[in-house]
Amino acid sequence: MYNSCNIIEHVIDTWEKLQAQAPLVQCITNSVAANYAANVLLAAGASPAMIDNPFEAESFTQISGALSINTGTPTTEQMHAMMISAQTAHKHHIPWVLDPVGYGPILKWRSDAVDALLQYNPSVIRGNASEISALAGRLTQSKGVDSILKSDEMFHHAQHLLTKTSCVAISGETDYILSNAMTCIVKIQGGSHLQPRITATGCALGALVAAYCAVAPVHLATITAHVHFAIAGKLAFDQAQTVGSFNIMFMDYIHMLDANLIEQYARIELISDD
Amino acid sequence: MYNSCNIIEHVIDTWEKLQAQAPLVQCITNSVAANYAANVLLAAGASPAMIDNPFEAESFTQISGALSINTGTPTTEQMHAMMISAQTAHKHHIPWVLDPVGYGPILKWRSDAVDALLQYNPSVIRGNASEISALAGRLTQSKGVDSILKSDEMFHHAQHLLTKTSCVAISGETDYILSNAMTCIVKIQGGSHLQPRITATGCALGALVAAYCAVAPVHLATITAHVHFAIAGKLAFDQAQTVGSFNIMFMDYIHMLDANLIEQYARIELISDD
Amino acid sequence: MYNSCNIIEHVIDTWEKLQAQAPLVQCITNSVAANYAANVLLAAGASPAMIDNPFEAESFTQISGALSINTGTPTTEQMHAMMISAQTAHKHHIPWVLDPVGYGPILKWRSDAVDALLQYNPSVIRGNASEISALAGRLTQSKGVDSILKSDEMFHHAQHLLTKTSCVAISGETDYILSNAMTCIVKIQGGSHLQPRITATGCALGALVAAYCAVAPVHLATITAHVHFAIAGKLAFDQAQTVGSFNIMFMDYIHMLDANLIEQYARIELISDD
Repeated sequence: MYNSCNIIEHVIDTWEKLQAQAPLVQCITNSVAANYAANVLLAAGASPAMIDNPFEAESFTQISGALSINTGTPTTEQMHAMMISAQTAHKHHIPWVLDPVGYGPILKWRSDAVDALLQYNPSVIRGNASEISALAGRLTQSKGVDSILKSDEMFHHAQHLLTKTSCVAISGETDYILSNAMTCIVKIQGGSHLQPRITATGCALGALVAAYCAVAPVHLATITAHVHFAIAGKLAFDQAQTVGSFNIMFMDYIHMLDANLIEQYARIELISDD
Repeated sequence: MYNSCNIIEHVIDTWEKLQAQAPLVQCITNSVAANYAANVLLAAGASPAMIDNPFEAESFTQISGALSINTGTPTTEQMHAMMISAQTAHKHHIPWVLDPVGYGPILKWRSDAVDALLQYNPSVIRGNASEISALAGRLTQSKGVDSILKSDEMFHHAQHLLTKTSCVAISGETDYILSNAMTCIVKIQGGSHLQPRITATGCALGALVAAYCAVAPVHLATITAHVHFAIAGKLAFDQAQTVGSFNIMFMDYIHMLDANLIEQYARIELISDD
Repeated sequence: MYNSCNIIEHVIDTWEKLQAQAPLVQCITNSVAANYAANVLLAAGASPAMIDNPFEAESFTQISGALSINTGTPTTEQMHAMMISAQTAHKHHIPWVLDPVGYGPILKWRSDAVDALLQYNPSVIRGNASEISALAGRLTQSKGVDSILKSDEMFHHAQHLLTKTSCVAISGETDYILSNAMTCIVKIQGGSHLQPRITATGCALGALVAAYCAVAPVHLATITAHVHFAIAGKLAFDQAQTVGSFNIMFMDYIHMLDANLIEQYARIELISDD
């Protein structure tokens, strides 16, 4: 399996596949993230297409390399498109990523939709600790879930989600990735404390996970997307410490990533799951 | 009451409260402003959430520190969400800001909606001279309103709006703020002539007014938001005179504002209202 | 008629008219492009308004200097607004630009809508080689159309579209413009290979074509918009070779263009159509 040495080689290999293939990635995302996520995918080397209406969802998902679904600011039409595209992706074995933005008891409409989407087995579920915790909590309701979990502890609960998806990514100051394909949990560090001060970075990360899923196994794709973001965030912060300039440098480093930068700056730790 | 000296202290105090509390601000805004307004709120220290569907509006407004409603590019679903959220805010004494973008005889659908929203007594109405003038004109129709008012004169008419709201902010080269809580009119200068050359700056300002309303009385919140924008605009223009770079520097200074910069650059004038 | 010398004078004249008149341009565009296209129009000197609901479309189009319709991420309400606004523009002789994003057999809903919009005779149809080719192909179906046309060859097919519109612009590494008002085909070079790596640049170009159509004959408007973009792209790339920084410099040069820069950097070639 993987170790801290060969995982970097796999990440580099996955990044190179993205550059070579420039996969078409359908994104059904929110109004805040649409422009930003498209620019991140283009900068990273993928081909985004924001097809989010229910009338074209089925035909477009069929020709896509991967699908990214994000519930940030859903409309009724987008909700229908999400269901159709997720079902189509599931049927045609096209990888798809679910980013359950806002999942929880306050936002019932989208949370019900996310519950329904789980039947189509997302390849990856990506969210912050609070969203993943709420989602895992629902599925392990009988055991009860602490609502003030530390993000370090929370990945134990997240493992219950692996009955619904192949891979769970919990983004935060440190990212955790759990997958049915790995016996370990992957811990990724880097980035910058400014990233949460820029809107839609998480949404764009979800879309980037989908892009990598079009060219590699989902667990490697998820790891690579998080490493890509963490390195770009770290290098951008080295050059700019205010949000406006940081955000531009971040996009620059999403674009400039290469094998050498991955080799030099990736901070991946494999921790055993006990 | 306030004078030109102690008002600065109140502004600094209000800015510090925003940093300390990072309030949750619900924004129902237009497709042009969604990303930009969210980034301005994050840069300023608040926590934006663009919940704009009618199915989650009631439950989300209840947990928000403030609400910002903007009629830039409304959809039918957003219109429903606006009504529900405004009503909820009114009922639960949550401050809310109305930015009646495009109000006037040409855009009847939104103007009718804005008229209906007034029943829920927005804490603040913020707009440019033309929008405020049209809105005030409607309410003072019997007296007639000059459609080519100078912005200097217009605040007299705007005072009629104070039966519907606690505070009126007229943004332009010079900003005017009128409030039931003050006997004077507040005049704020600064900014840059480039700001109108960047889309959604006014919309983001409305959202920032809402953010400050979550932590301070509405008139101080409104003054502070306008001072925040005016200083960031002035300092950004000192460094960049073209729109792309200016916009990045503007976001940087929204982020970098502190007590010293407020002390040094705030240009607030209190003028008696006669 | 035009030659390679006097065409530059016409472009400068058209650019100056835009600065002098700052025309109101209604844009019905996609969620990815809304902010970016508005900023490009403002930077270029126009006044954008993103009125995209069916309830205000008719009254607003009547007061607009030009209309830009883009089918990137349509909603049902936007589709209705497109039909109403296109019909209104046609009736009142207001120039309008059609950017048939995604036109082709995979995206049937929008393609049917685009077919219906053609009855209102867009002043300009702007798209990439694949979209224009698909659209031209449909209209010349009996002759058959090669789906792997070179962009150099494709303009011959595009001429069939001139029964539906006065002007066709095919954007790519090299731009081609065909018009009923000219016996030659106009070839414009410049720009940067980074432009396709930034989302919504094509959409913003379509909106800019509309802006120029408000102040000049459609063929000169279309040429000037493409020259404006090509010069800004070339000068931006001279200063920044990564997508984040390039995009900011691009907006700066959209803003900074002037007669001298047009004189110095415009690369326009008039080629005979045989």
